[in-house]
Amino acid sequence: MKNDLMIRAARGEAVERTPVWMMRQAGRYLPEYRAVRGQTEFLTLCKTPELAVEVSLQPYRILGVDAVIMFSDILIPVEAMGQVVTLTEKIGPKLPEPIRTRAQVDRLIVPDPIETTPFVMEILRILRRELDGAVPLIGFAGAPWTLAAYMVEGGGSKNYAEIKRMMFAEPKTLHALLDKIADTVILYLNAQIEAGAQIVQLFDSWAGELSPRDYAEFALPYQQKILAALNRDAVPAILFINGCGTFLEQMATSGADVLSIDWRIDLRDARRRIGDRLGIQGNLDPCVLLSTPELIASKARELIEAGGGRRHILNLGHGILPMTPVENARAFIEAGKGLR
Amino acid sequence: MKNDLMIRAARGEAVERTPVWMMRQAGRYLPEYRAVRGQTEFLTLCKTPELAVEVSLQPYRILGVDAVIMFSDILIPVEAMGQVVTLTEKIGPKLPEPIRTRAQVDRLIVPDPIETTPFVMEILRILRRELDGAVPLIGFAGAPWTLAAYMVEGGGSKNYAEIKRMMFAEPKTLHALLDKIADTVILYLNAQIEAGAQIVQLFDSWAGELSPRDYAEFALPYQQKILAALNRDAVPAILFINGCGTFLEQMATSGADVLSIDWRIDLRDARRRIGDRLGIQGNLDPCVLLSTPELIASKARELIEAGGGRRHILNLGHGILPMTPVENARAFIEAGKGLR
Repeated sequence: MKNDLMIRAARGEAVERTPVWMMRQAGRYLPEYRAVRGQTEFLTLCKTPELAVEVSLQPYRILGVDAVIMFSDILIPVEAMGQVVTLTEKIGPKLPEPIRTRAQVDRLIVPDPIETTPFVMEILRILRRELDGAVPLIGFAGAPWTLAAYMVEGGGSKNYAEIKRMMFAEPKTLHALLDKIADTVILYLNAQIEAGAQIVQLFDSWAGELSPRDYAEFALPYQQKILAALNRDAVPAILFINGCGTFLEQMATSGADVLSIDWRIDLRDARRRIGDRLGIQGNLDPCVLLSTPELIASKARELIEAGGGRRHILNLGHGILPMTPVENARAFIEAGKGLR
Repeated sequence: MKNDLMIRAARGEAVERTPVWMMRQAGRYLPEYRAVRGQTEFLTLCKTPELAVEVSLQPYRILGVDAVIMFSDILIPVEAMGQVVTLTEKIGPKLPEPIRTRAQVDRLIVPDPIETTPFVMEILRILRRELDGAVPLIGFAGAPWTLAAYMVEGGGSKNYAEIKRMMFAEPKTLHALLDKIADTVILYLNAQIEAGAQIVQLFDSWAGELSPRDYAEFALPYQQKILAALNRDAVPAILFINGCGTFLEQMATSGADVLSIDWRIDLRDARRRIGDRLGIQGNLDPCVLLSTPELIASKARELIEAGGGRRHILNLGHGILPMTPVENARAFIEAGKGLR
């Protein structure tokens, strides 16, 4: 591989410089992405390999990021489990028949990813071929708590009232759902690795809405189950949680090689708390990318220094916002690469 | 005062039992509240003392809470500063002319609370008279960062992109706004104390969206300015932040007597981190109140035990949700009082 900085950083090996990419880097802030999306529904884009490959590669070609993440959506395997999902990028996902009962959980299947979502593996295979070892290829999946939140709420949520009602009043039903999702994600990520993913990221984006005790019961064990079951001798795993500050120590027991942290925690504090055994990815507030190239470059350099040049992958603390100017995203990547 | 448990707990004095109340206890989960609201616009309710007094007293009469908080909204002084505010309870606040420039900041006034919001002081005076020392009366205000978020975003927000854009790109404009709000809140809370508030709570609800460094620059100094300027020899001050887990130590330097914490942090951990000098209020996940009376009572008792019976005020980690069954709210209050 020509540029394997991110893989080496994730494994704790020496790197010449800190690698950099951005969550949601294949997205609406890029005019080239909007040009593709203008002619295609979001879900169609996810399911059409040539188009998904094109938008996956855009941030690499346009900004020179150190890794490419396949374009997809975390709800793709949920649809394969048998729940109806409609995805409109601006409104967000809608699941018109939310899961509320044990009978509904029992009707969900653990799908064979090759049969039900072959387009995902095809995207990865083409990306590996097109990249030809230029930079690592990242595959991903949503973690059980976060996917269950969409499945039970029926979409995005402010308070997570429905899934938490289930969690507190009917914990066995929720555990059954979480376990089924975990089995689905294991097959799904192993198929991605088989198809060529060189790094995998598990998104438990909304686990930060849990108390530490509920995190320990309803999120962590399923992260652990998945991360222990992946065929990943050479494939580092990253775990992202938005709002992870109060259970970083628990998160460190997930089995992930790298913890992807949000901006609400100081990077040096995070390092102090989890020790040197794991990598850290992050953690610039995505809203900094709405300011000026100068400020962005300065804050990127500060983060690189805070990361100490080892076991650190520079990234945002959450996905890049759609209204981010491209020149600002470029400033972040270039500063990350020492070019500003 | 017949029941001054909450004041004593806030001051660190001995109490026979842990006091209990709920943020947003005068609210939509109560049929009696909905009956009043059914005939009155939300903002009219805030501005009509006899009605606001009625809904303030409902949770005391119906559930037996250990304190009464005046019914109002944190945006009342924002309207008095000269910004147009429309409040519809279900949609949330809308400010059709959001603050985006220094000229707009300069046009805002620091209003005299007696002249511009006399109804707030009238509500407090009537409540003191009606309560006749039964339980303490809580006054409140929004803190500058949180109020500025509404003023700049023009309403509630998901990413706080507009205020953070101002924070990163034009920090002087934001500081000018925050300082003007701080001056407004000082006059406003001092007028509340003068009118009879026996405890004050400062809501910096959205400060948890900041990085620790941005919190230190854009939220904490204004909390400190306000809390240092209050005429409150005998009036304890509580500071609430939703998502305070990663800067609890900073929050402890605000000058507040009590830190009101959300559920994402373990209460014992919070106590360990801030020491014995301050009180803690909280911190049950409001979604627990969507489960069963038995589970609620059990979790309330656990929290009381974790609080150690000293310098602890039992409360939720955020406001009670509108869909909470009344019998569940009752289970929380009664368990808090040792009646279950």
